[in-house]
Amino acid sequence: MMRINQLLQEFLMEDIGRGDATMRVLFSGEERGRARIVARENLVLAGGPFARRIFQLLDSETEVKIPVPEGEKLKAKETIMEVSGRLVSLFSAERVALNLLQHLSGIATLTRSYVRELRGLRTVLLDTRKTNPGLRVLEKYAVRVGGGRNHRFGLDDGILIKSNHIRAAGGVAEAVLRAQRSAPHHLKIEVEVRNFSELEAAVGAGAELILLDNMRLTEIKKSLERFGDRVEFEVSGGVTRENIRRLAQTGVNFISSGAIIHSARWMNIAMEIME
Amino acid sequence: MMRINQLLQEFLMEDIGRGDATMRVLFSGEERGRARIVARENLVLAGGPFARRIFQLLDSETEVKIPVPEGEKLKAKETIMEVSGRLVSLFSAERVALNLLQHLSGIATLTRSYVRELRGLRTVLLDTRKTNPGLRVLEKYAVRVGGGRNHRFGLDDGILIKSNHIRAAGGVAEAVLRAQRSAPHHLKIEVEVRNFSELEAAVGAGAELILLDNMRLTEIKKSLERFGDRVEFEVSGGVTRENIRRLAQTGVNFISSGAIIHSARWMNIAMEIME
Amino acid sequence: MMRINQLLQEFLMEDIGRGDATMRVLFSGEERGRARIVARENLVLAGGPFARRIFQLLDSETEVKIPVPEGEKLKAKETIMEVSGRLVSLFSAERVALNLLQHLSGIATLTRSYVRELRGLRTVLLDTRKTNPGLRVLEKYAVRVGGGRNHRFGLDDGILIKSNHIRAAGGVAEAVLRAQRSAPHHLKIEVEVRNFSELEAAVGAGAELILLDNMRLTEIKKSLERFGDRVEFEVSGGVTRENIRRLAQTGVNFISSGAIIHSARWMNIAMEIME
Amino acid sequence: MMRINQLLQEFLMEDIGRGDATMRVLFSGEERGRARIVARENLVLAGGPFARRIFQLLDSETEVKIPVPEGEKLKAKETIMEVSGRLVSLFSAERVALNLLQHLSGIATLTRSYVRELRGLRTVLLDTRKTNPGLRVLEKYAVRVGGGRNHRFGLDDGILIKSNHIRAAGGVAEAVLRAQRSAPHHLKIEVEVRNFSELEAAVGAGAELILLDNMRLTEIKKSLERFGDRVEFEVSGGVTRENIRRLAQTGVNFISSGAIIHSARWMNIAMEIME
Amino acid sequence: MMRINQLLQEFLMEDIGRGDATMRVLFSGEERGRARIVARENLVLAGGPFARRIFQLLDSETEVKIPVPEGEKLKAKETIMEVSGRLVSLFSAERVALNLLQHLSGIATLTRSYVRELRGLRTVLLDTRKTNPGLRVLEKYAVRVGGGRNHRFGLDDGILIKSNHIRAAGGVAEAVLRAQRSAPHHLKIEVEVRNFSELEAAVGAGAELILLDNMRLTEIKKSLERFGDRVEFEVSGGVTRENIRRLAQTGVNFISSGAIIHSARWMNIAMEIME
Amino acid sequence: MMRINQLLQEFLMEDIGRGDATMRVLFSGEERGRARIVARENLVLAGGPFARRIFQLLDSETEVKIPVPEGEKLKAKETIMEVSGRLVSLFSAERVALNLLQHLSGIATLTRSYVRELRGLRTVLLDTRKTNPGLRVLEKYAVRVGGGRNHRFGLDDGILIKSNHIRAAGGVAEAVLRAQRSAPHHLKIEVEVRNFSELEAAVGAGAELILLDNMRLTEIKKSLERFGDRVEFEVSGGVTRENIRRLAQTGVNFISSGAIIHSARWMNIAMEIME
Repeated sequence: MMRINQLLQEFLMEDIGRGDATMRVLFSGEERGRARIVARENLVLAGGPFARRIFQLLDSETEVKIPVPEGEKLKAKETIMEVSGRLVSLFSAERVALNLLQHLSGIATLTRSYVRELRGLRTVLLDTRKTNPGLRVLEKYAVRVGGGRNHRFGLDDGILIKSNHIRAAGGVAEAVLRAQRSAPHHLKIEVEVRNFSELEAAVGAGAELILLDNMRLTEIKKSLERFGDRVEFEVSGGVTRENIRRLAQTGVNFISSGAIIHSARWMNIAMEIME
Repeated sequence: MMRINQLLQEFLMEDIGRGDATMRVLFSGEERGRARIVARENLVLAGGPFARRIFQLLDSETEVKIPVPEGEKLKAKETIMEVSGRLVSLFSAERVALNLLQHLSGIATLTRSYVRELRGLRTVLLDTRKTNPGLRVLEKYAVRVGGGRNHRFGLDDGILIKSNHIRAAGGVAEAVLRAQRSAPHHLKIEVEVRNFSELEAAVGAGAELILLDNMRLTEIKKSLERFGDRVEFEVSGGVTRENIRRLAQTGVNFISSGAIIHSARWMNIAMEIME
Repeated sequence: MMRINQLLQEFLMEDIGRGDATMRVLFSGEERGRARIVARENLVLAGGPFARRIFQLLDSETEVKIPVPEGEKLKAKETIMEVSGRLVSLFSAERVALNLLQHLSGIATLTRSYVRELRGLRTVLLDTRKTNPGLRVLEKYAVRVGGGRNHRFGLDDGILIKSNHIRAAGGVAEAVLRAQRSAPHHLKIEVEVRNFSELEAAVGAGAELILLDNMRLTEIKKSLERFGDRVEFEVSGGVTRENIRRLAQTGVNFISSGAIIHSARWMNIAMEIME
Repeated sequence: MMRINQLLQEFLMEDIGRGDATMRVLFSGEERGRARIVARENLVLAGGPFARRIFQLLDSETEVKIPVPEGEKLKAKETIMEVSGRLVSLFSAERVALNLLQHLSGIATLTRSYVRELRGLRTVLLDTRKTNPGLRVLEKYAVRVGGGRNHRFGLDDGILIKSNHIRAAGGVAEAVLRAQRSAPHHLKIEVEVRNFSELEAAVGAGAELILLDNMRLTEIKKSLERFGDRVEFEVSGGVTRENIRRLAQTGVNFISSGAIIHSARWMNIAMEIME
Repeated sequence: MMRINQLLQEFLMEDIGRGDATMRVLFSGEERGRARIVARENLVLAGGPFARRIFQLLDSETEVKIPVPEGEKLKAKETIMEVSGRLVSLFSAERVALNLLQHLSGIATLTRSYVRELRGLRTVLLDTRKTNPGLRVLEKYAVRVGGGRNHRFGLDDGILIKSNHIRAAGGVAEAVLRAQRSAPHHLKIEVEVRNFSELEAAVGAGAELILLDNMRLTEIKKSLERFGDRVEFEVSGGVTRENIRRLAQTGVNFISSGAIIHSARWMNIAMEIME
Repeated sequence: MMRINQLLQEFLMEDIGRGDATMRVLFSGEERGRARIVARENLVLAGGPFARRIFQLLDSETEVKIPVPEGEKLKAKETIMEVSGRLVSLFSAERVALNLLQHLSGIATLTRSYVRELRGLRTVLLDTRKTNPGLRVLEKYAVRVGGGRNHRFGLDDGILIKSNHIRAAGGVAEAVLRAQRSAPHHLKIEVEVRNFSELEAAVGAGAELILLDNMRLTEIKKSLERFGDRVEFEVSGGVTRENIRRLAQTGVNFISSGAIIHSARWMNIAMEIME
């Protein structure tokens, strides 16, 4: 929370700089008013609590009401938030609050549409570390709001041995064995494999999680059949809303997608001053 | 530069946290290697100097070569960057560098495609303040690389009187007059108008720049005919690659688009370890 | 506001360091008291809101009353502020609050005396970037309180082509033309000229604002006569309270002075404990 | 050093903000040049090492030569510093470096003129805590360059019991006794007295340093005669270059002046681009 | 206070990182509860106010009651603190609050046991600069709670000339004389001596405080007899609870010990959820 | 690395504050010298690279040689480090470097003595989150140098369901099931149990790691016999060098100890100036 407050303050400072020049020339600073933030298209709401805090970090006297919970599906024209207080405080926080709401709601909306494809299946949708620099905690939050689950937050909270690591370590088995010698006891070792023989080597060496990257459907099925009862499988690469259900029907435990974050379109959301 | 170094360090810390757990269990830290960052689709390169600094902030001994200048059009498979040094330094900086390159090159590529539509016309493409929080300086840099020009960086470096301001101030003329009384002498006063009578009021009161927001083509033309020799015009709202040339042919001085930043798709870029 | 709070906190930490050694040996920390901050000479008050925040950042329970508005002319012995709360909080914030009040009121008082010389004329008094490092936002605030207007806050929010720039760019016309090609659309291009031929070149190339630096009165008059209806003029260099009215009577739009900040004398202000 | 580097970086960021707009429109960023910083009036130089670091913090490739040592007396037109490197780096650091040099050299020059009045006497000139917020370490450095010595740097590194403390503690003797009970063993207890009976009480209770504030010359003499062999005396209040020698001739150990910092006039110093 | 809040926030962030993973999977975040922090062995309490602030910095709605004052002797099973509020807030702050309480109470408990040995003697127990990096202000606070007094907080708030300094300066007398020439007027000059001839030189040159480091009891006695009426003496080196009374009986003014901080054992303290 | 540099800088600033007062009065700042840091008792070295960086962060020109690798066993009087450069830089960094070396070598030395007891057994020694606030990364590093492995670095990088969590969640099975529903896929779920029926519930619900806290040897054995082939076991509580081998001989996978950090005694290490 503290770290997020810091982040939101930096966002405000980025936009406000040395002060809102337009407001300074137009108003005394004490005028008061009310405004409404509204959806201008259908969306899954994410970021409300952060938008509230943006308004209140700028001016603790601004009042904020959010009539709908996070994750709610809203229709165009529905109200997301009502704010009232000093006009200068409303205007100066507006753009930062909107930018965040539009971006996070975009992620939640896209994630929700992927998750809906998984209905009835055991497969869980994961995000990746392909996030906009500086925004990871917020973007991964939006994924959870949309119904996805989070993969690693950083290089420090999980072990994922990728192709580049394997090449540098001199082979799958060698890499997995090294990892087992000193990995934190509470982390599962996950290994990315590119073909069936790497898969066999990884499982043989004791990997507990297998990442199948950019494999064809038939290969995924074959992998599951052979080792599905011994290890868990994550599938990644080229996942779309169109193919995600077919991928999931192979029985994989996890499907990960960077696109639910980096390809999410901003939702159309605006602030309107009320008389 | 100093502020950007700080920003890039925070990006690294976001991803690395308490240290790369995978590298710690696989390597001693002194192994060395080389890698290549390559385009996996056609793109306009942006972010090379920042990616270099990311590698070197993490480890000042990492060597980085960038064979192509910023703004260059690259084909799939072409090399963007070569890095060599400690393996742990290459791997730990990889994701942050890629995330930034993919995002900024996406913006530059999209911007370039808009700018190309303006060939032969005097109209200049501008961005807006609809940017991902915390990334504005970098995203606006990518717009310039793509051939666009920057609108305001924040609320503090320009005066733009929008509809919400006008409503709160009690009218167009009143707002413009107030602004003239105390605006910094080196700033032009820009006013957003929604119809022709607001336009007349704004120009009459002395506005030097007019923002026509979401106006129809015929209205834009009429505005230009009437006042094009007295003030400069910016057009915004619903700008696409499809309609931008038609908008520009009205003779407007500026067209601004938030989409060139917030709707830019990430380019496909990857790092490959070399034997 | 957030940035200013940070600044004021740093000011407090600069003075308090690891804690007020004198208070620690004299008091338990819970004693309470009241004090009055008084003017000891005639002055224009500036900095009251910042002084209030200094007391309250140190101890949110300290009560502060400011009986007079910013910009008020006070006579010696008049009360500027009343504070009550924990003694240790009053004493530990005293010096920082006074230093700021004395400095800012000094600037406001001097600025007011210059502005009074401009009565009845259209000329506006501006400050410059000659400010004490780290204090610019506060010092420029005091100029506004005193009745002046602010020039640029930094190198980033305005374009001012000075002699050194012109020399490096290879001439006035060349510099102005370059600037026009890529300057932000909402900024006027201001050019410093040293003689009449530079003036002609600058106006000819499209400069919108002219800075006449250290020119004689006759030259200023001649410049105004020739181009006063096409561009705006700022005069700087050697401005004093004695000559400012004469300079203004030439009809220049702006007169800028660094001295109103860097040569302002501290006002005599003190805090007195009340029984 | 580290803290000062941080401070100097903040000074640069205050002036540069999001980047030098004028340089951006005029130059590519790779042009190179040389410039000279020169005294435009007689002065005692202070701040050279900080100015050097300002240029080099902005751009580590800028070369700086300082032909004269700190504390040197310079005549008008003499060179203070030569800088060469990227033009954008020279121009963007110019104002910050000059502001600091002008301010610190002003303090050193004024201090030197006071110190010269003390020639042949044992009295030492001290500064006070009346400093511009945020600049204390630098301003007190300039006092040392000018030949003065520093009083406390903050509330934490010395014990000075002032009139307000005494009033709140219920008397001189009571305050001194309390202080002795828990003061750090390596600090002398200094007490401000307003009259002779307070002086007697302070010395009687064990004060080791006496501050005579705003006392008349005859009172100072009497105090010295009576207790000069038992405690050390500091005199403050209304010290000027005119009366400092007379005050010192009483034999006081220390004279402290806030004016040498807060009333120091900026020296005239400028940067000139060289062909 | 401000600086300590910052410190405590960093402690929280160190432990919480990107959020409490266990709480996130177990609870919604809105569950509420109460807990009690209890002593599990006899101890002198120190750190209560900081532990309170840790809970409240994390969540300002957490209520904290501390039934006993700082410095109180507690028996095993006695309650140190009661906290109530959101469960996630209690659990996420628990470890940080306990770590600090256990460490600081350990220091206070050990210090108290040393101080008790000094009963009836004038000798004062001091700490040293041998503290855990980053924790000095807190550890020295715990010494005061335990009944000790603080030596220097840093290199900047006192002058202590040690053997290494003397060697580099070329002798005791030379070092003391240099120090007198420019030492701040409110600091006593303390000198560490290793034998009687150094002692004579130091006192002769005007040292006001003498540090006898690692001297035998007979040497200490001899030093006191010879110079005890002219200077104050501090003894350090090899101080234990067993020998401290004997050292103090020599009449030395101060005994300093690093062990009361760096060798203090953590007290056993735990948090228990209440039904 | 970046974050650790920041930390080490804060350690330096804590000790140096506004500058080394003793060095300022004794030396000009340009004197040069050499010093040796030596062990004064047998120890396992930890912290050498950090001590080097402390010297070089303060002054990049200080030369540092470390003749022995981290983790080396040193005898009393052996040299740990040689430093040469400006005297003021050596003296001002001395205490911070020593404090860190003494503390970290203490942890490594104690850890090594525990690890030696585990010779020939498969049990791995772990640390805990009982660390000195602000020093966790460094203290856990010293544990690795000593031959131990690290448990969680914070609440965010592992899931450990403790008694307090279980009580709040309403039972072991309920807690484990909830965790499985949303835990990150790459984390093993660890559960603390207090008796055999909790153990059965935890394993039955799918826990993968069991923490036996403060259990008797016979209970530990019984647990291992029953479930040792299905889950991994960690033992904690009351671990000493005396009993650790007996605990390990039960076959537990992990033994965790807070004492190896918080009860480690500082090693005796000192710096000596060389002629």
